[in-house]
Amino acid sequence: MSTETQTKMKALHYDGPFKVSVKEIERPRLEHPDDVLIKVTTAAICGSDLHMYQGRTAAQGGLVFGHENMGIVEELGSGVTLLKKGDRIVLPFNVADGRCHNCEEGKTAFCTGVNPGFAGGAYGYVAMGPYQGGQAQYMRIPFADFNALKLPPGTEHEADFALLADIFPTGWHGLVLSGFKSGESVAVFGAGPVGLMAAYSGILRGASKVYVVDQVPERLEAAKKIGCIPINFTESSPVDQIIKHNGGMVDRAVDAVGYQAVDKSGKKEQPNVVLDQLIHVTRPTGGLGIPGLYVPADPGAPDEQSGKGQILISFGKLFEKGLSLGTGQCNVKAYNRYLRDMIISGVAKPSFVVSHEVSLDDAVDAYDRFDRRVDGYTKVLLHPNGPL
Amino acid sequence: MSTETQTKMKALHYDGPFKVSVKEIERPRLEHPDDVLIKVTTAAICGSDLHMYQGRTAAQGGLVFGHENMGIVEELGSGVTLLKKGDRIVLPFNVADGRCHNCEEGKTAFCTGVNPGFAGGAYGYVAMGPYQGGQAQYMRIPFADFNALKLPPGTEHEADFALLADIFPTGWHGLVLSGFKSGESVAVFGAGPVGLMAAYSGILRGASKVYVVDQVPERLEAAKKIGCIPINFTESSPVDQIIKHNGGMVDRAVDAVGYQAVDKSGKKEQPNVVLDQLIHVTRPTGGLGIPGLYVPADPGAPDEQSGKGQILISFGKLFEKGLSLGTGQCNVKAYNRYLRDMIISGVAKPSFVVSHEVSLDDAVDAYDRFDRRVDGYTKVLLHPNGPL
Amino acid sequence: MSTETQTKMKALHYDGPFKVSVKEIERPRLEHPDDVLIKVTTAAICGSDLHMYQGRTAAQGGLVFGHENMGIVEELGSGVTLLKKGDRIVLPFNVADGRCHNCEEGKTAFCTGVNPGFAGGAYGYVAMGPYQGGQAQYMRIPFADFNALKLPPGTEHEADFALLADIFPTGWHGLVLSGFKSGESVAVFGAGPVGLMAAYSGILRGASKVYVVDQVPERLEAAKKIGCIPINFTESSPVDQIIKHNGGMVDRAVDAVGYQAVDKSGKKEQPNVVLDQLIHVTRPTGGLGIPGLYVPADPGAPDEQSGKGQILISFGKLFEKGLSLGTGQCNVKAYNRYLRDMIISGVAKPSFVVSHEVSLDDAVDAYDRFDRRVDGYTKVLLHPNGPL
Amino acid sequence: MSTETQTKMKALHYDGPFKVSVKEIERPRLEHPDDVLIKVTTAAICGSDLHMYQGRTAAQGGLVFGHENMGIVEELGSGVTLLKKGDRIVLPFNVADGRCHNCEEGKTAFCTGVNPGFAGGAYGYVAMGPYQGGQAQYMRIPFADFNALKLPPGTEHEADFALLADIFPTGWHGLVLSGFKSGESVAVFGAGPVGLMAAYSGILRGASKVYVVDQVPERLEAAKKIGCIPINFTESSPVDQIIKHNGGMVDRAVDAVGYQAVDKSGKKEQPNVVLDQLIHVTRPTGGLGIPGLYVPADPGAPDEQSGKGQILISFGKLFEKGLSLGTGQCNVKAYNRYLRDMIISGVAKPSFVVSHEVSLDDAVDAYDRFDRRVDGYTKVLLHPNGPL
Repeated sequence: MSTETQTKMKALHYDGPFKVSVKEIERPRLEHPDDVLIKVTTAAICGSDLHMYQGRTAAQGGLVFGHENMGIVEELGSGVTLLKKGDRIVLPFNVADGRCHNCEEGKTAFCTGVNPGFAGGAYGYVAMGPYQGGQAQYMRIPFADFNALKLPPGTEHEADFALLADIFPTGWHGLVLSGFKSGESVAVFGAGPVGLMAAYSGILRGASKVYVVDQVPERLEAAKKIGCIPINFTESSPVDQIIKHNGGMVDRAVDAVGYQAVDKSGKKEQPNVVLDQLIHVTRPTGGLGIPGLYVPADPGAPDEQSGKGQILISFGKLFEKGLSLGTGQCNVKAYNRYLRDMIISGVAKPSFVVSHEVSLDDAVDAYDRFDRRVDGYTKVLLHPNGPL
Repeated sequence: MSTETQTKMKALHYDGPFKVSVKEIERPRLEHPDDVLIKVTTAAICGSDLHMYQGRTAAQGGLVFGHENMGIVEELGSGVTLLKKGDRIVLPFNVADGRCHNCEEGKTAFCTGVNPGFAGGAYGYVAMGPYQGGQAQYMRIPFADFNALKLPPGTEHEADFALLADIFPTGWHGLVLSGFKSGESVAVFGAGPVGLMAAYSGILRGASKVYVVDQVPERLEAAKKIGCIPINFTESSPVDQIIKHNGGMVDRAVDAVGYQAVDKSGKKEQPNVVLDQLIHVTRPTGGLGIPGLYVPADPGAPDEQSGKGQILISFGKLFEKGLSLGTGQCNVKAYNRYLRDMIISGVAKPSFVVSHEVSLDDAVDAYDRFDRRVDGYTKVLLHPNGPL
Repeated sequence: MSTETQTKMKALHYDGPFKVSVKEIERPRLEHPDDVLIKVTTAAICGSDLHMYQGRTAAQGGLVFGHENMGIVEELGSGVTLLKKGDRIVLPFNVADGRCHNCEEGKTAFCTGVNPGFAGGAYGYVAMGPYQGGQAQYMRIPFADFNALKLPPGTEHEADFALLADIFPTGWHGLVLSGFKSGESVAVFGAGPVGLMAAYSGILRGASKVYVVDQVPERLEAAKKIGCIPINFTESSPVDQIIKHNGGMVDRAVDAVGYQAVDKSGKKEQPNVVLDQLIHVTRPTGGLGIPGLYVPADPGAPDEQSGKGQILISFGKLFEKGLSLGTGQCNVKAYNRYLRDMIISGVAKPSFVVSHEVSLDDAVDAYDRFDRRVDGYTKVLLHPNGPL
Repeated sequence: MSTETQTKMKALHYDGPFKVSVKEIERPRLEHPDDVLIKVTTAAICGSDLHMYQGRTAAQGGLVFGHENMGIVEELGSGVTLLKKGDRIVLPFNVADGRCHNCEEGKTAFCTGVNPGFAGGAYGYVAMGPYQGGQAQYMRIPFADFNALKLPPGTEHEADFALLADIFPTGWHGLVLSGFKSGESVAVFGAGPVGLMAAYSGILRGASKVYVVDQVPERLEAAKKIGCIPINFTESSPVDQIIKHNGGMVDRAVDAVGYQAVDKSGKKEQPNVVLDQLIHVTRPTGGLGIPGLYVPADPGAPDEQSGKGQILISFGKLFEKGLSLGTGQCNVKAYNRYLRDMIISGVAKPSFVVSHEVSLDDAVDAYDRFDRRVDGYTKVLLHPNGPL
């Protein structure tokens, strides 16, 4: 049967809070000459997908999730000049047009041409533009020559390459935002997938020491395995622990937690706790990298001010120390080409964070378990067209 | 009478809140082989001297104020290798040892060798180390080869050169902290001496547009004269005014106000108002420079939190825009050599901000008027050894 | 008559060495969905057009010259998303696809997608790809959203904006390549249009001193008028003159001459003379910017080695001084947006270098006079569709 | 016996070409308040010491060699503020005053205050100032607070720390000069100690691929052991080999060979061969780092031009590719602190290049064998006060 006559596909379908299902829906079509259509080989589930899953956003039923995607080029628009049918590609989670002011300066996470009224677009995400996600058999890629990163043909390194869509570059970006230079010491707060990738980036780039702060033993163990020094913040002040071990403050600190930070009990939300720890653990003239998400409006916030995205910060101390600070979503294209080459040459193997690989049919169950953080679900890869 | 036998000198003497006097005190002596002693030709009064004058700090009676100083080398320690008697020099307000980790990386505002337990020292300032200020006839300069910047002999450009000690480099630094590149647009909040110097730096470095926000007509007029676009924040939202005039948000914004910011009434302190305006007026991917002072503890703060140096910031918006932010005291030595050359060649003439030049005998009166902001007192230069 | 039925246009037609004519030729058509067609309002003649005019290249008869172009959007391909009919735009001389590795890193002068087998493309230039030049009534713009820079509607600043296509950004780039920072001193070798633009960029960006080296009195006079210090290299060693005037070597030096440099006689070609002067005039740790053209093969070279693009350099001295050096064609898009804003706000007015503005009918004569350097022809603007 | 009464010490004494001896000479004394005297624990022999040993320089009999030194502080001048007796320190090979223009900008290899008429000083080296080398029991350290890097007490990591004086930072610097960013590919030419350190730096900093070019099997084997891809240039063009293996040109290239480069025969000197290979092996927009020594005058050069430090370079190709290039001696202080921390934490272990450790009594023999490249002598450490 030719691709022209196939018009349906299976996709993970958001039905409402805590409800997803796998449905047959319309297969996407080319809509612009620079589009391509891909057959998805791997789409990861991200912790941020759970925000929508839990009904804490304005996401509407019918949305197909998935912003960490890779696959094989199936159809090409007439304007495509670099890709060809059969190419294996991975897509940055950012949708970018490659022709606006921000894109031309490499700030593809802040593209002004793909999501009217906002600087930045993404696949399968509420308020990030009309782009269906990749937790589906097929997927439309806008401005495909610009957005796609070519991979070697075959199936090798599939899990590693899948992480080029978001978390490996995002972790790397955290370090870049902090102003990190090889040889420096760094403290990474949060050992979820992004935090581990930030820590791993420090190891890869020759940090003299990488501290990783979390409360979950398995995460701290994973950090230790890659050469980091684990710090459990529920035992005592992570700032004090790090300063004591390090013989002084660190050069750089990365916040891979974001606005849902919890206090020393490990349970109660306190949005400013990690930012303040960054300020206190970093030496004068050092830098802070904030890849962890902070939002301008949070309906589920513990207090009115953080509900409006306002955070109380020890700004006097920040100033006294002369710290600098970088924030924002990762411009994936700024790094993914080089990280890909590190994977190919065997220098990097980020897939150690992947806990499960499942078929689309098992996706509903995977969401449920991932959301409940049971059975070790930390990073799940879907293969919507079956195992490779 | 030889210099050896002179042991007294006249100096501005802090007596307590709102009380200063000119007294005969001990002339400073060389204390370390790398010291020099200078005869002060010019010492400026800084807005931050008024904090101590008003009794809002822990400054004790007996302190000699003055961290913006220049003069002629009079005596040299045995370790001095670059300076010689008779050299005309200007001193950065930062006292730095030139041999610690931060100094070797050019972060002289955060020297760890001159003020035990703290990163940073200054002349004539409470809690900034045991360094007498320059509002006196003579002054001891530690680590003099490192700290001094040589000037051409004579008296030419005296007022311009005096501003190399602090406000010209500090304004320039504000722009650097924002990540400014020539050709970009910038909004400077605050048109006091530092704000005007930041704005002037933008003009000198080829900003496409420089907006200057204040409420004082004379200051706004001064900004306009050097080519800036004045914005009066008491008329309507300065963010809206700038965005409208600029046809969109600016690339960079500088906070030259600090923690004593006031709300739109122009009178009531609201410590976070300027920071929030910076966040809103700057375009996604842009940068914020914060040379304006924020302190970890402020006994006179309008509320408990800002008393502890904690400021409520629209961090969600900051993150959404992917803004970066730089803070801290100026590392004067990073810029003063180049700014000096701009003055010598006639490219820069920062002394337009100087309102008065007075003798030491008139200093008591000058403090009083400057504190009351009467008679146009905005930037005062003292000549402790008489007119040049 | 509708645009659809018009199929002819007038264009400057290269016939062979020293022979150009204005002919009716086929009007270009859209060839790719991301193309636009513009009606050319202004196209400049560049000194490098004369290389082809003089028959010193492999350019074939029939080529339409012109890589410095601006005009009004007339037709749009179906893939264009940002431009619309009637937009006034200026085009970088580089043709770039906006989707290759180099483009995504802002290195649009080295695009690998527009000129098979070579990194870099341009309009109307031999060996730079199949792109007809703009010295014609109409012109096809590939990857138009990416390449075009929008201008305010109307005809204001036409001459200034035309220089955004090449020489203003190229001069600015020379300074960037040298590592220049505001406040430093710089020596620019060559006061042709690019050299003057490099010098002007130094003035705009707050250089403490800008030296300009040439032998032509009118050019040196133009440099002086914008605030530079003119140095005539036929009088005595320009290196000695500059070091003497500056009280030492300069921080940065720019070579805006290239491989056709002449020795102190002002007449005899000596390809390495300017490079060597840069090395000797720049202080240890300084930087050299080389926007002036050097080529891998030059049939008209004065000796065999320079015929192969090999230049004898005082590399031992370069190393001893620890100099850095940057080269290459300008990535126009890296700067043109900001330079445009400087023109609009009145900060920059580069059109002072324009000597003549002519119609297409006068182009043949203009080439002849420009080539013979008579009647003050230094920078000529053509208006192929008549005066504005 | 007190230190005051000891006035003699043993030192390696240069007698003339190919003649060194161990003699009793005057022990150095403090000469300036900022001096310290150290008891040398380790001093390395550098390949550049052989230039003097072979009589190819203007070095006079009586010179004590040794610019890679570490030891224990024994006496302190009255101006020293940071060091204390008993501190274990390593010294950069550069002697720097910490107070000149270049030092304050971190360019300590180009200090203008320690070697009149020249920018840069070093210990035990002809024309680098009046500083006796460290191949002796004691050594005077000028501007000691600035120059010394403190180490943990004891004898651990002695061989690794000794390499902080020169070759580890110099190799690292080579990468920095090339503009290297983590994830890029790099080709290092030369696998002597500096080349191996440059390659090792690439590995430590996350290069995707590191090619190492040499002809000596043991060196290539050492490169392979640390994870590099060895390329033997006597087999076929190293440029072709690398491009073929890499699937294209590399991002960065480092010249760790310098002016004594040899052609494909592996024997005949051809000073420009490596520079030209760098130009050809690096992709357009890439960068070249040149830590390998080039000199302004070389009496033993194979031709007149290179005798004057003039090298014939494919400059046309360099320009066409838009390459940048950095050169010069390493500013050791810019890196040694961070590299030390990498050694302490176990991230880096550069001592794999050390082939021999000998006492001062064996130094004469070590020079002879090292010079003849026999018995595997590649990097020799002396312990002038006996084994640790």
